[in-house]
Amino acid sequence: MNEKQTNTINRPFIFLNAAVSADGKISTKERKQVKISGDNDFERVDELKKESDGVMVGIGTVLADDPSLTIKSENRKKYRKNNGLDENPARIVVDSNGRTPIDADIFKKGEGKRVIAVSKCAPEKKIKTLKEKADIIVAGNDKVDLKILVEKLKDMGIEKLMVEGGSNLNWSLLSLKLVDEIHAFIGNIIIGGSTAPSLVGGSGFPETDMLKLKLVDFEQMDDGLLVRWQVEKQ
Amino acid sequence: MNEKQTNTINRPFIFLNAAVSADGKISTKERKQVKISGDNDFERVDELKKESDGVMVGIGTVLADDPSLTIKSENRKKYRKNNGLDENPARIVVDSNGRTPIDADIFKKGEGKRVIAVSKCAPEKKIKTLKEKADIIVAGNDKVDLKILVEKLKDMGIEKLMVEGGSNLNWSLLSLKLVDEIHAFIGNIIIGGSTAPSLVGGSGFPETDMLKLKLVDFEQMDDGLLVRWQVEKQ
Ligand SMILES: NC(=O)c1ccc[n+]([C@@H]2O[C@H](COP(=O)([O-])OP(=O)(O)OC[C@H]3O[C@@H](n4cnc5c(N)ncnc54)[C@H](OP(=O)(O)O)[C@@H]3O)[C@@H](O)[C@H]2O)c1
Ligand SMILES: NC(=O)c1ccc[n+]([C@@H]2O[C@H](COP(=O)([O-])OP(=O)(O)OC[C@H]3O[C@@H](n4cnc5c(N)ncnc54)[C@H](OP(=O)(O)O)[C@@H]3O)[C@@H](O)[C@H]2O)c1
Repeated sequence: MNEKQTNTINRPFIFLNAAVSADGKISTKERKQVKISGDNDFERVDELKKESDGVMVGIGTVLADDPSLTIKSENRKKYRKNNGLDENPARIVVDSNGRTPIDADIFKKGEGKRVIAVSKCAPEKKIKTLKEKADIIVAGNDKVDLKILVEKLKDMGIEKLMVEGGSNLNWSLLSLKLVDEIHAFIGNIIIGGSTAPSLVGGSGFPETDMLKLKLVDFEQMDDGLLVRWQVEKQ
Repeated sequence: MNEKQTNTINRPFIFLNAAVSADGKISTKERKQVKISGDNDFERVDELKKESDGVMVGIGTVLADDPSLTIKSENRKKYRKNNGLDENPARIVVDSNGRTPIDADIFKKGEGKRVIAVSKCAPEKKIKTLKEKADIIVAGNDKVDLKILVEKLKDMGIEKLMVEGGSNLNWSLLSLKLVDEIHAFIGNIIIGGSTAPSLVGGSGFPETDMLKLKLVDFEQMDDGLLVRWQVEKQ
């Protein structure tokens, strides 16, 4: 095993997908969801879900938006069924303390696997309740250890993992070098606000060690731009 | 005069120009300048300066980056001279309290007019010192009134005004509907950081009234993307 291989871990192909405003925001400062993209982008995202084995979000996104993370098109669901898959990719929430509400839309809507990734800190009682609705993965002491988590997801058969935000989960994954690609739809609005969540939050890269990307492709979509970046391997 | 005309003010054509990371940041959380763009973008910006009558920044940018805001190419400077213009467009700092350092690069480098826009709050003593180096425009009580300022700049003969940031000045101009276009070079890096200045800071637009843009054009430039947006007139 050479040095490179020693440093890499056995994980899925991981890509971030997001809709951002022309000023790089993913929601308002009140963390309210905003319509950033249009119909074609909606179809594009639905297609990406169809092709993915898992869709992951942070608990911040569940609490703010309560997304169902399901595939919307009947044809795409049927296609998956015909290929021996669940209608929806596995829905994964990164949630150290097991705060995912039991009546969250990811539980209520659509068929398929749900995974709640918690840390060792998550209260027993919460885990017990969530266990009725989802598989529980424990990784990390007080915060979900994402390296361990993605290895476990790979072991579960997840080869292609789509990450749908938010800002802090994106940051953690990127800073741990766990991301292969970023797909950003840039919409034709300005959200503004120095505290509105942007595509990548967290503590930010040090000046001397910014994360480098490679522009893969770009095209107009609806009234905005779809841009695909590859994360450069260091 | 129809209703539309009553609402408009007599001001220059105003465009924002910025280099942003793929996650919408214009500098690190320490407000340190980062190399976002490449040689072709550098030339593009120099050309834009050549074509502009004024280049404006906020005092935050002067204090953080100490930019000279001069044109770099000898040919472009010569071109302007041959057309009866100063080598550099007028350099304008929006600086309510007259905090522009007397040894700032905008004073030390290049020929051409300097304008410091202050509010009525700026201390007499500061104004007196700055007056030796620049024209002083007083507009607004405690913060520079940008509507008054841009009208005064138009009166001075500034027809085309380039705004080079930062985050807060961009916000104020956009929220006052004083911007016609936004030119953003999106570079192939992730800066990250929930407190790093983004293209548009300030308090942000209300959920129900986001600023709408129109995609004018886009092209690959260096290792990133150049995107031009028009601000839709309400
Ligand atoms: N436009 C778009 O495409 C889009 C997509 C998604 C979300 N959004 C927006 O993004 C915002 C939510 O973003 P957010 O940053 O607040 O939340 P987030 O990234 O969805 O979730 C962050 C939370 O995940 C938990 N977590 C556990 N382990 C973690 C780890 N190792 N690294 C990072 N986080 C970990 C933490 O909470 P615990 O400590 O409790 O575990 C953390 O606060 C919402 O406003 C939403 O509307 C927009
Ligand atoms: N990548 C790029 O293209 C680029 C370009 C430029 C700047 N930057 C970065 O941007 C950062 C600076 O941004 P910033 O937001 O701190 O500073 P800024 O926008 O350059 O300046 C803001 C300051 O201008 C003054 N001001 C006066 N009247 C104002 C008004 N009506 N509206 C808004 N501001 C008014 C205020 O200070 P007073 O109250 O003292 O007047 C305010 O704090 C730096 O980190 C710099 O590196 C990046």
